[in-house]
Amino acid sequence: MPAILNPSLLILHHNHHYPRLSTAVLSLRHHLTLSLFSPSRTTLRGFSTSSSSLSIESSANQNVRTGRSGSVSSPPVEHNTAEKIDVNPPKGTRDFPPDDMRLRTWLFHNFREVSKQFGFEEVDFPVLESEALYIRKAGEEIRDQLYCFEDRGNRRVALRPELTPSLARLVIQKGKSVSLPLKWFAIGQCWRYERMTRGRRREHYQWNMDIIGVPDVTAEAELISSIITFFKRIGLTASDVGFKVSSRKVLQEVLRCYSVPEDMFGRVCIIIDKIGKIPMDDIRKDLQSADMSEVAIEELLQVLSLKSLAKLEEKLGASGEALSDLKQLFSLAEKYGYSEWLQFDASIVRGLAYYTGIVFEGFDREGKLRAICGGGRYDRLLSTFGGDDLPACGFGFGDAVIVELLKERGLLPELNLQVENIVCSLDQELQGAASAVATILREKGQSVDLVLENKPLKWVFKRAARINARRLILVGNAEWQKGMVNVKTLSTGEQLEIKIDELE
Amino acid sequence: MPAILNPSLLILHHNHHYPRLSTAVLSLRHHLTLSLFSPSRTTLRGFSTSSSSLSIESSANQNVRTGRSGSVSSPPVEHNTAEKIDVNPPKGTRDFPPDDMRLRTWLFHNFREVSKQFGFEEVDFPVLESEALYIRKAGEEIRDQLYCFEDRGNRRVALRPELTPSLARLVIQKGKSVSLPLKWFAIGQCWRYERMTRGRRREHYQWNMDIIGVPDVTAEAELISSIITFFKRIGLTASDVGFKVSSRKVLQEVLRCYSVPEDMFGRVCIIIDKIGKIPMDDIRKDLQSADMSEVAIEELLQVLSLKSLAKLEEKLGASGEALSDLKQLFSLAEKYGYSEWLQFDASIVRGLAYYTGIVFEGFDREGKLRAICGGGRYDRLLSTFGGDDLPACGFGFGDAVIVELLKERGLLPELNLQVENIVCSLDQELQGAASAVATILREKGQSVDLVLENKPLKWVFKRAARINARRLILVGNAEWQKGMVNVKTLSTGEQLEIKIDELE
Repeated sequence: MPAILNPSLLILHHNHHYPRLSTAVLSLRHHLTLSLFSPSRTTLRGFSTSSSSLSIESSANQNVRTGRSGSVSSPPVEHNTAEKIDVNPPKGTRDFPPDDMRLRTWLFHNFREVSKQFGFEEVDFPVLESEALYIRKAGEEIRDQLYCFEDRGNRRVALRPELTPSLARLVIQKGKSVSLPLKWFAIGQCWRYERMTRGRRREHYQWNMDIIGVPDVTAEAELISSIITFFKRIGLTASDVGFKVSSRKVLQEVLRCYSVPEDMFGRVCIIIDKIGKIPMDDIRKDLQSADMSEVAIEELLQVLSLKSLAKLEEKLGASGEALSDLKQLFSLAEKYGYSEWLQFDASIVRGLAYYTGIVFEGFDREGKLRAICGGGRYDRLLSTFGGDDLPACGFGFGDAVIVELLKERGLLPELNLQVENIVCSLDQELQGAASAVATILREKGQSVDLVLENKPLKWVFKRAARINARRLILVGNAEWQKGMVNVKTLSTGEQLEIKIDELE
Repeated sequence: MPAILNPSLLILHHNHHYPRLSTAVLSLRHHLTLSLFSPSRTTLRGFSTSSSSLSIESSANQNVRTGRSGSVSSPPVEHNTAEKIDVNPPKGTRDFPPDDMRLRTWLFHNFREVSKQFGFEEVDFPVLESEALYIRKAGEEIRDQLYCFEDRGNRRVALRPELTPSLARLVIQKGKSVSLPLKWFAIGQCWRYERMTRGRRREHYQWNMDIIGVPDVTAEAELISSIITFFKRIGLTASDVGFKVSSRKVLQEVLRCYSVPEDMFGRVCIIIDKIGKIPMDDIRKDLQSADMSEVAIEELLQVLSLKSLAKLEEKLGASGEALSDLKQLFSLAEKYGYSEWLQFDASIVRGLAYYTGIVFEGFDREGKLRAICGGGRYDRLLSTFGGDDLPACGFGFGDAVIVELLKERGLLPELNLQVENIVCSLDQELQGAASAVATILREKGQSVDLVLENKPLKWVFKRAARINARRLILVGNAEWQKGMVNVKTLSTGEQLEIKIDELE
């Protein structure tokens, strides 16, 4: 398998050439707080940056590359040469040691609980998809940063940058075998690749909820309600976060007025989504190259600045779909009881080409972070894949910005390991007895950390504290002869001899 | 981004050339039972085959390849040409529509609950790792089938084929900042790539539990106990499944007798693991090429045929570590109360190069399936990555074979969608009122499927049955005027008018 033997262990070579640097990098990393999700200011839906730790990594990686260029043809070095590999996860990716994993589990648990409360069913798709699924012409950032490659069978594949195309694929595949509406949610890892060394992350997890088969704005209202339920659940209020809402039909009506070709629509949306991220002159140039006249551009930009439905009605008249959709959404928001979370903002278009109607994004009221989540209606996505269109809407909610926000607000939960019991034998001979005691407790549904070696009691108490054990159960010779064990309640220090078969 | 525009939509071209075939494949798939995990007879730890559905896919894929070879330089085709994409997930991968996802969730829930009962903490690692992490010289199948590629920054990376190397990397990275022993578990997707079109799957999920820092066999005994706890939880008994146990030290002692070089050890283990899978003559040839004399080979093969510790003691004497480890394990098994699940079998060596001591695998007593799970001690893995060695053991447990087994035994759980309430307005004007009712119920912790369109009652009842709703709540004009709704308990047909603020 030459494909595997080729690379000749880049990292080992790196260590050959820069032994000192590598140690320095490692010890530096030791002193950095390893935060799960670090602050950022990038634009893509949900991806985060961690400039501090990753910039160090990237300097190390450059050396790897330098080291490599001269060593492509050297013989493969085997691991048992015992040179230290790069102990960091690949650039832009994360390990989840227990602390970080507990936070992720907590977050996902809340995603799931809310989704289930709204009657949604969980689905998942391969993290690796055919590249064809993501090729769209609109010039989206998500496509330019596709993490794509050729597999060993010469197929073009990509690590999914988002979940919606896979969902669409599955919906087409299922065809008439499913009864509409579908209410599906997914929590999946998404990937992007960018060459810039800004230390941005290359993977994130995303919570998606989608409703397939409902043409009414009632679907969007339900989706926004579920996100708000999630916000409330984790302690955020309408003074922390809100939603900016608009409809792509606003844009469509303006473009139609100025006879901009229909097939420019997606592209114009992507350009507009870049307002505030690139200079206005570039925006204007891009719009011109999308067949828009200067008059049309100025009119468009004016409409985009509107912040009230009344003003929008003045501009577009009362008869259009854009206005009636938005009015219905705000009316439903009142009935749901979440009006105060919602505001109209014509500048919201979202950065994905496939949206066709209502679009929305969650934002922090202090304006420090990029969008927390975003979504909208995409009634024509299925036909771009050759399927029959179905009305559809959904949202994506990343795992990065929300954690930054909770951190800022002091709302991150305290999540500690907790094992109910620690069981320890006082004598090596009684290790088997301790196993039996652990088994009895586990069969009664209790969690047990069994001490597997002969350790001093001081060590056992320290471990008990670390795992937040409620009880310490000691298996000593004298008690064991009587079929008993010593049970110590660690919060009170209370200590009892209990018969083994009476352990609860 | 030429890297993205290159592939010119293979599938579309395929459809150009074979429009009929593609339709045929799609409709064929419709008639196949889409089973989550299909029966198989392959050898690698945990991966499954699904020869029926995948062989059809693979014939389609061959056409894609044929189609492509003539079309590399044709201009990119955009999705909105509305030709149907391949609606199947990439070859060898799975979608998880709701039914399959419920089974996966159930399985993972049981993995997690058992792990927690044993005091283990969950961790995770990137699905994409540096290829260097998996380069070992022993000729393992897992390495030959590495799903590796070069990323856009010219780094050699791989979709992880297993979790243990990532775990080792993280343990080295954490160094002295963690207190031993570590008891960690992970549930992660693993990948392999093979060119053969046997329709084998390219991804599976694997449950791992690992104990780092315990040199005693107590650790292996604890791991086996946790797997047995899992088996019992899902309804399997010692007459369904068992464990074959041996120690690599058995082999080591034989090899040492015949002065086979130490560094041949891993390689010899991999060769022996192929017994029963390739012809004995090939095994003998491979062993010869690993510096073993014919006498040594015959002796080795004889030892491998032993099925009792007494016989092993006759052969190796009573003093070696192999025997004392195994004796201790069987003695502990008695104390734990799982002796009947365990049997000594010297032929067990496992197919990964890094094991150093006790090895074990779970098997079905009918002998129809390949190993359900497998694991062992790997005390010297960390130093092959340049870290300081720590005693370690662990196991991998795939999501494929276990489901086949449960299916065969009729033990697959019935997992249905269940949403507690379905809420429906009887009048389009009352859609907002229905939203309010749904919100009240959700705030009280209930799950609610809200009907988002104006539908006939017949449709609503059908949906209520599909989602196994307990109650149907109708929002009608007359009741709503009185601040009430109509609540129907679907199992009894009982119907009540209830005040909205008294809804529970």
